[in-house]
Amino acid sequence: MTGKKKSAQASVEAMYRVFTVPEAPESTLSRIDQDISRNLAGFLQEHIVAVERDLSEVEKDFSEYNIPEKPVFVSEQAQFLLDKLVANSVHTASPAFIGHMTSALPYFMLPLSKIMIALNQNLVKTETSKAFTPMERQVLGMVHRLVYEEDGSFYRKWMHDPRHTLGVMCSGGTIANLTALWVARNRAFPAEGSFRGLHQEGLFRALKYYGHEGAAILVSSRGHYSLRKAADVLGLGRDALIAVETDDRNRIQPDALREKCLELQKQKIKIMAICGVAGTTETGNVDPLDAVADIAREFGAHFHVDAAWGGPTLFSRTHKHLLRGIEKADSVTFDAHKQLYVPMGAGLVVFKDPSLATAVEHHAQYIIRKGSRDLGSTTLEGSRPGMSMLIHSGLRILGREGYEILIDQGIEKARIFGEMIDEAPDFELVTEPELNILTYRYCPEDVQQALRVADELQAEKLNTCLNRITKFIQKIQRERGKAFVSRTRLEPAHYYRFPCIVFRVVLANPLTTREILAEILEEQRKLSGDEGISDEMTILHQMAAAVLKQHEPSARQA
Amino acid sequence: MTGKKKSAQASVEAMYRVFTVPEAPESTLSRIDQDISRNLAGFLQEHIVAVERDLSEVEKDFSEYNIPEKPVFVSEQAQFLLDKLVANSVHTASPAFIGHMTSALPYFMLPLSKIMIALNQNLVKTETSKAFTPMERQVLGMVHRLVYEEDGSFYRKWMHDPRHTLGVMCSGGTIANLTALWVARNRAFPAEGSFRGLHQEGLFRALKYYGHEGAAILVSSRGHYSLRKAADVLGLGRDALIAVETDDRNRIQPDALREKCLELQKQKIKIMAICGVAGTTETGNVDPLDAVADIAREFGAHFHVDAAWGGPTLFSRTHKHLLRGIEKADSVTFDAHKQLYVPMGAGLVVFKDPSLATAVEHHAQYIIRKGSRDLGSTTLEGSRPGMSMLIHSGLRILGREGYEILIDQGIEKARIFGEMIDEAPDFELVTEPELNILTYRYCPEDVQQALRVADELQAEKLNTCLNRITKFIQKIQRERGKAFVSRTRLEPAHYYRFPCIVFRVVLANPLTTREILAEILEEQRKLSGDEGISDEMTILHQMAAAVLKQHEPSARQA
Repeated sequence: MTGKKKSAQASVEAMYRVFTVPEAPESTLSRIDQDISRNLAGFLQEHIVAVERDLSEVEKDFSEYNIPEKPVFVSEQAQFLLDKLVANSVHTASPAFIGHMTSALPYFMLPLSKIMIALNQNLVKTETSKAFTPMERQVLGMVHRLVYEEDGSFYRKWMHDPRHTLGVMCSGGTIANLTALWVARNRAFPAEGSFRGLHQEGLFRALKYYGHEGAAILVSSRGHYSLRKAADVLGLGRDALIAVETDDRNRIQPDALREKCLELQKQKIKIMAICGVAGTTETGNVDPLDAVADIAREFGAHFHVDAAWGGPTLFSRTHKHLLRGIEKADSVTFDAHKQLYVPMGAGLVVFKDPSLATAVEHHAQYIIRKGSRDLGSTTLEGSRPGMSMLIHSGLRILGREGYEILIDQGIEKARIFGEMIDEAPDFELVTEPELNILTYRYCPEDVQQALRVADELQAEKLNTCLNRITKFIQKIQRERGKAFVSRTRLEPAHYYRFPCIVFRVVLANPLTTREILAEILEEQRKLSGDEGISDEMTILHQMAAAVLKQHEPSARQA
Repeated sequence: MTGKKKSAQASVEAMYRVFTVPEAPESTLSRIDQDISRNLAGFLQEHIVAVERDLSEVEKDFSEYNIPEKPVFVSEQAQFLLDKLVANSVHTASPAFIGHMTSALPYFMLPLSKIMIALNQNLVKTETSKAFTPMERQVLGMVHRLVYEEDGSFYRKWMHDPRHTLGVMCSGGTIANLTALWVARNRAFPAEGSFRGLHQEGLFRALKYYGHEGAAILVSSRGHYSLRKAADVLGLGRDALIAVETDDRNRIQPDALREKCLELQKQKIKIMAICGVAGTTETGNVDPLDAVADIAREFGAHFHVDAAWGGPTLFSRTHKHLLRGIEKADSVTFDAHKQLYVPMGAGLVVFKDPSLATAVEHHAQYIIRKGSRDLGSTTLEGSRPGMSMLIHSGLRILGREGYEILIDQGIEKARIFGEMIDEAPDFELVTEPELNILTYRYCPEDVQQALRVADELQAEKLNTCLNRITKFIQKIQRERGKAFVSRTRLEPAHYYRFPCIVFRVVLANPLTTREILAEILEEQRKLSGDEGISDEMTILHQMAAAVLKQHEPSARQA
């Protein structure tokens, strides 16, 4: 053998070993694996650096654009990932990180995920998933039952019927919402007479055939941005997503909704779908689903509920009443990687009617043939991993009671935190929690008094100043890395709908305690005295004083 | 404390433990975890039952539709999964399972996946992903460089630019293709004058404004079914996906494509996108991308290349010439869970022009704000896991050379298997491998002779009979569980385009040997003598004899 041939042979053998020889138990990667199994919280605590590095700094570690010519040792890559990636990742499981919808995971999810990845099934067809297909159908059936509470004969008939499906699994809520609206759109313009259906002939011909000028999706102004994205993807255009006014608790106003529908009808716009929100992303409020359902029925529209966040509230006997009317929905989105505590990448939509998804059915010769049990025939995605196994395990290992505890505790904790904010003179609760989400801001007592009497222009000035302070505190707190709240912008009615920046808090991590919440407030209070914002703070107090002086008598009354 | 309160307290504590107490090292789940780490191949071999159970039987284990009220022990669920789910899953990593596009995984992917899941990052925004964002941008940059080979200054300028992106990561090839065509559609009907763009006003108004009767996507008749699905989702309708004739090697015919474009133009149909295929799903062929690029340019159409399968051929110095012209594509789809050997759930699309994705840019107040580095502003999906970490590791640990070896060996193995089939008198190679995919069928020598001289009706009868036999052999071989080839339907030109069912083979598993391939053929040969198909076989031979008798002189010549 020549030297060149020998070296080629060695490379081939090295490549073969990568697929056949397990990592040695003492290797860097095996040690990490064991560390995580033994003590995940400790691993994350130890390896994620608290103090934030600027992203433009971090980018330097990821600036090479050439795929390396020669292989890098596994141990080298493992060490690189630990030092450069893990160290600068986000501690989403931290109980003091209450700004995300991502929380700590139950321990059992880790080894179960390993099984899932080791099996590497593909749910697009039974040929690459076998038992995973009925298992996924069962998960869809269980969530369907949670939402719609049909009787046993219903599930015995439909759950495993190859030509029907109770829902569709996907990578997350955005795809779930898109799938639901895809179904709604195709069903709104079905085949009839010489027209072979929107799915076949497209939106342009569909609107012409049915004599419409457009098609609309209605949702409250607090609806998730994925719905507008869906309107774009589906060819309706972003304008087709009609935002309806909310009441002072961020819930859609049924009267406004109905009026808007009548107006659209007059313009020959087809009311394609009405979406209710069960847990708004920013404020955790639930639309009056029952009333919305009635309006959807009145206008012959598909009724979709985006319960990506709030769906699991159905586990709670105490709070499920908030979602009354969800059982009237044609489709409901659930996010498993949120309050089902499954790792990132798992969402689903369930359909009231098991034949609904036929509106988007696809077949091919080499896959998902007609009459097969292949789940891929009605999914937006093609190849998909077996994430439903983790949902299956969550539902069984935690049980309804377990999830109920998690939901009830989250809502209770949000109530308590709301009270803490209310009682603190220098904080203002902006939206009270209905589920486990609330918003607030740092707002000194004198400014709160001033805001109570301020006219529109004065309120705008005070709020503009407060916005800068809120942004500053949120950013510095995040950078210091001990705690994290997120921020968003709301338009409170009592501040003349002026856009106010607020801290947003999601209380889904069962490990978050009252003490942690108190510390978060305390850190924010301290940051309000930071010199980086001292000029702003001086101006704020001066403005408040001026407003109070002008309105002295009424301020005293308030 | 009352009994009820005590029990409630106990439940709460149990729930808390699930999040804080690691699995004990001797628990069922920990043992599985360790088994997989120590010896994945052994674990799969031991736990996956070879002989297939009927799916209707398997369904019985997944027939409960109620979420259990009380929690089930982790060990009980682990055992259930082993016995009922894992046992009846598909051994996708088996070197004798050559019918899937899913193969064995490199060992290091397992512990790395565990890190990814433990970190539970969300790539939609930097607030929940920090270093994962630049890392993902780097991966996109590396694949971009592999495809487009721009120079260093290009990548230094664009790779980490917050207002641009070199591509979009997603859960798989279907979403990647959809994303590319979404971009293409929005760019085909941009804002102009009083028209605010398709993305805003929708397809109906876009076509009216631009004076088109429709919009079309053209691809060869061997294009992936996800493209037709995309035409449906995007509101164009499935009819808008125009299938263009292929030559006898399953490659698009540029002349036919050009003619079709001219025809559509006359009908005032906008040529929205032309898709080239780099690795057809069924036969592994590559379109003449260079010629297709020229036609796309001629008609001002977006040129997309679906390289979900064949993209990694670019790693091979020997075979990359097959993809010449791919660098002219506006967008290219790659599937990482195929020939990048990453676990299920990872695809991506790269864009030649870093500003292309702005056509689908979305923003919201609480997320992906304007000017942020958040990757979620141009992805179809919202929340997404950190799968790019696994691609990053694959690219570094295998290196270009490692992937080259995998690609070259797969193509070489397919060539060898093609020869084995050619040399076997009772098998017929239906499509020769160009990459690492081929199709064939069991076809006795006399039938092959008869087919050579048969007229159209006779060929149809012989092929109908062969179709039943191919289906039978494929099904029984799968059920016996030692080996697996898939099947599809092709319309070979030399059989008057009659639909022929064939075995389809994908040679991507580096552990598949020549001996294994010989055994697969041998098992199929034996199955051809199975009594379940003996009547069919008798008829086949009689038909062949009759054809040969009729054409005796010409048959002898052949």
